[in-house]
Amino acid sequence: MAGHSAGTEIERLIQLLSRLPGLGPRSARRAALQLLGKKETLMRPLADALQDAADHVLTCTTCGNLDTTDPCSICADGRRDKGVICVVEQVADLWALERAGANSGQYHVLGGTLSALDGVGPDDLNISGLVTRVSGSDVREVVLALNATVDGQATAHYITDQLEGSGANVSQVAHGVPVGGELDYLDDGTLAAAMKARRPF
Amino acid sequence: MAGHSAGTEIERLIQLLSRLPGLGPRSARRAALQLLGKKETLMRPLADALQDAADHVLTCTTCGNLDTTDPCSICADGRRDKGVICVVEQVADLWALERAGANSGQYHVLGGTLSALDGVGPDDLNISGLVTRVSGSDVREVVLALNATVDGQATAHYITDQLEGSGANVSQVAHGVPVGGELDYLDDGTLAAAMKARRPF
Repeated sequence: MAGHSAGTEIERLIQLLSRLPGLGPRSARRAALQLLGKKETLMRPLADALQDAADHVLTCTTCGNLDTTDPCSICADGRRDKGVICVVEQVADLWALERAGANSGQYHVLGGTLSALDGVGPDDLNISGLVTRVSGSDVREVVLALNATVDGQATAHYITDQLEGSGANVSQVAHGVPVGGELDYLDDGTLAAAMKARRPF
Repeated sequence: MAGHSAGTEIERLIQLLSRLPGLGPRSARRAALQLLGKKETLMRPLADALQDAADHVLTCTTCGNLDTTDPCSICADGRRDKGVICVVEQVADLWALERAGANSGQYHVLGGTLSALDGVGPDDLNISGLVTRVSGSDVREVVLALNATVDGQATAHYITDQLEGSGANVSQVAHGVPVGGELDYLDDGTLAAAMKARRPF
């Protein structure tokens, strides 16, 4: 709340801004003031961009990516390898891999991980969609790019079981020392995983 | 940039969100994904709130506050003391004082401080408006609530000179140990100011 001095329009704006991740009540007030000081160059363009994106952005029914077309531009891109599907938890992970140029194949967004604690079961994730995509297709490899957390790994095991007999090989991204990382600053789990997965030099 | 996988609508949204204070490129991407996941409960309401605020929020021509009316609700409030004007740098400072209920009088927003480094002179601030408001009125006290910085204090001295002979007393908010503050953690300047301004207990 900005206090009773600000109009309800401002209070409502601050209240909505404070629901964005990374913005608390104080930074939402700062953001609102910045926006009100740049009505034509920032505030109205942002309002339009929000409206446009809300109107035009769809979830790809094939892979779960967000795009303005369905199928999305990745699924529709004939130059990408149809034989490889990279499985990620969230659209943000897909974007990260695309920024890195790390995958020239397709994607499949699960929408989360299995989690006993949070009550997330297989039916809450887009796993059956993955099995359907893979079975009876010419997909030869499913690359699991899930987070290296307990829930991520449990999900990886579950998916591997489900894809048994589908004809596709299931692989997983390597876990180890991050590029540029210093051993001294890494946690024990990462070091143990990196040592266990050592390769000929 | 979200990479070429995201539609231009999403990239434009991320680019605009990243211009808000407190949001960098990474948190702007997270915010965009959160918004796209809550189209009806957050994204469209935020677009509407931005549009509404851009359309209806004005700068009060009397005091410089932001509100949907001009004069603003504080200037128009007959229950507030017309004899006291509290001078602040920014609207955010006005909001902070209102949240604290620290001022029952009027306000005057300067829009910044004098700054030789940034090339901000008296004509860039709403100082002449303050002098006009005070002279020939029944304002008996002008309270300077400027930041306790070099620029803030230089501005305070300049305003005091300008109001010389206006008939109003000029005062300044106290500088000292913050309530709840521990002496051991305070800087030398604050401790020296608090000691110099000591009062009978």
